[in-house]
Amino acid sequence: MDAKQYLMQKSKEVDGAIKSFIPDEEPMRLIEASRQYPYAGGKRMRPAIVLAACGAVGGDKSKAVPLAVAIEYIHNFTLIHDDYMDGDEMRRGMKTIHVGYDMPTAILAGDALFAKAYQIIAELDIPSDNMRGILKFVSKAVWDLARGQQFDIENEHQLVSEERYTETIFLKTSVLFAAAAAGGALVGNASPEVVEAINKYALDMGLGFQMFDDYLGIAGDSSKTGKSVGNDLRKGKCTLMVTYTLENLKDEAKLAKFKSILGNMNATEEEVREGMQIMKDIGAIEYNKKAAEDKIASAKSYLSILPDSEDKEFMLALADYAINREV
Amino acid sequence: MDAKQYLMQKSKEVDGAIKSFIPDEEPMRLIEASRQYPYAGGKRMRPAIVLAACGAVGGDKSKAVPLAVAIEYIHNFTLIHDDYMDGDEMRRGMKTIHVGYDMPTAILAGDALFAKAYQIIAELDIPSDNMRGILKFVSKAVWDLARGQQFDIENEHQLVSEERYTETIFLKTSVLFAAAAAGGALVGNASPEVVEAINKYALDMGLGFQMFDDYLGIAGDSSKTGKSVGNDLRKGKCTLMVTYTLENLKDEAKLAKFKSILGNMNATEEEVREGMQIMKDIGAIEYNKKAAEDKIASAKSYLSILPDSEDKEFMLALADYAINREV
Repeated sequence: MDAKQYLMQKSKEVDGAIKSFIPDEEPMRLIEASRQYPYAGGKRMRPAIVLAACGAVGGDKSKAVPLAVAIEYIHNFTLIHDDYMDGDEMRRGMKTIHVGYDMPTAILAGDALFAKAYQIIAELDIPSDNMRGILKFVSKAVWDLARGQQFDIENEHQLVSEERYTETIFLKTSVLFAAAAAGGALVGNASPEVVEAINKYALDMGLGFQMFDDYLGIAGDSSKTGKSVGNDLRKGKCTLMVTYTLENLKDEAKLAKFKSILGNMNATEEEVREGMQIMKDIGAIEYNKKAAEDKIASAKSYLSILPDSEDKEFMLALADYAINREV
Repeated sequence: MDAKQYLMQKSKEVDGAIKSFIPDEEPMRLIEASRQYPYAGGKRMRPAIVLAACGAVGGDKSKAVPLAVAIEYIHNFTLIHDDYMDGDEMRRGMKTIHVGYDMPTAILAGDALFAKAYQIIAELDIPSDNMRGILKFVSKAVWDLARGQQFDIENEHQLVSEERYTETIFLKTSVLFAAAAAGGALVGNASPEVVEAINKYALDMGLGFQMFDDYLGIAGDSSKTGKSVGNDLRKGKCTLMVTYTLENLKDEAKLAKFKSILGNMNATEEEVREGMQIMKDIGAIEYNKKAAEDKIASAKSYLSILPDSEDKEFMLALADYAINREV
């Protein structure tokens, strides 16, 4: 199965629903601001995970569509707030909300999307006990997302450990993937055992996805990723490649050199190349790639609990896609 | 019954619980920031309403304590975000979160409290159908709170209608009071009819409470309210007194004078006195007080559906207190 194509197809399936849960209402400025990110598209990975998890446990996917929308709104709420905190000015080809509107509207649009997600969850057409289970996963995820973003900010301009790096991406990426997957399974009325397996699949897939994302930023084809290679080094971005290098490089001179390049926005092209070579020589780039692959293998293993189905196939293919993409 | 004393007693009952739902966890900076407002006290009106509504319908109040905490966390989440948007630097004798910590921590502490509130609601020890009902009230309230704050910001430096004023305070104050009241009734397993009556009680009480608050800002004893009388005029604060004056003053010269004072931070003491006199002469101050009293009378009337009890007495006394206080 081609996960990318399937993803695009699923994306189309939820696009209409994503545009149907925020009706016109005053003040329209807030409504329009809250619609911008979810309406603008994106990979729609989280909605696709919700639907696939529901289908893979034999559930009625049409009942999972509202949850897919709610999870996407939550993702977009965090993007709006993160973009403001990080000072990012563009997303998906448009001005970010605090730039295109203003700061208060951005904060409120995020809060409003968050509240709307819970309104949707409260109305899910499933037994209330299952709805309660979903509520637990989702609320824990949002709590953890806030912790992850706080870690991310505190990690800047610091040399952090591999453990701290992994915890940060776990909180920033994995937990919402996992809420999407477990939530979809709960809509499909899966047993606690199956819900737990699907949850673990998504947690590990989130880790593998983010680790590979970091790898692409260094080893990827910049004409495809759109990221200038080496820029992550200049920005001092915390990745497994960096933590591995810092923890394993014993040559004092090289270590000093590496630290002088890391997070140095004025590093020359030659210095960046040198920094990349240091990571390559010590095996950090390979280590990062291997770590992502291990997480994906682990993620896939949890799905053995499920019977064969097109949705299970997609979940497996999506995991493979996470570490076999160019963008 | 002395509502103020009862309020202080209820406040003590929930204080311990309010400090028990946010355990130590990394990153501690975020945890400490999210604790500051809820731990610092306040009137605890919303928690008291939750408990009283539960008791008044014959429910087990101990089961309503977590919901009381969740509603207070939501109130505090909105305060943290509003303080940042409004540029306020002090609250409850301490630096606001964006001042004492920093902007990202303030945004994330608000988001985290919001998520924690839902985690608590998901764990309520009541039937899941009742929990779902509470979730609907609370999520609608937070959606409306965001709309209300957006209105509030857009109202600044504008001459708005009485209708717009009422809608703003309805969204900013009434809806969360109402979620507290209806939520408490649902914990107590009240019938839909009773839940609706209690909800309406709180909606009207919220309106009366806020209208009287505005009245105190103009007609109150500044040595008690701590607000310098007339400052609301200088700030151009939107109140019923102002909307009534603008809508009813026919004397063009006086109207021009009034508009020149309203929102003019440089207005002299004499000008402010003149503006107050204009409002007094046209009956705007009395109109505002009467409107608050009418809302409170309406609020109380909804409680006739309840049997007599100490908690019902408190709910009635709290409504009276809303328009018979000096602070």
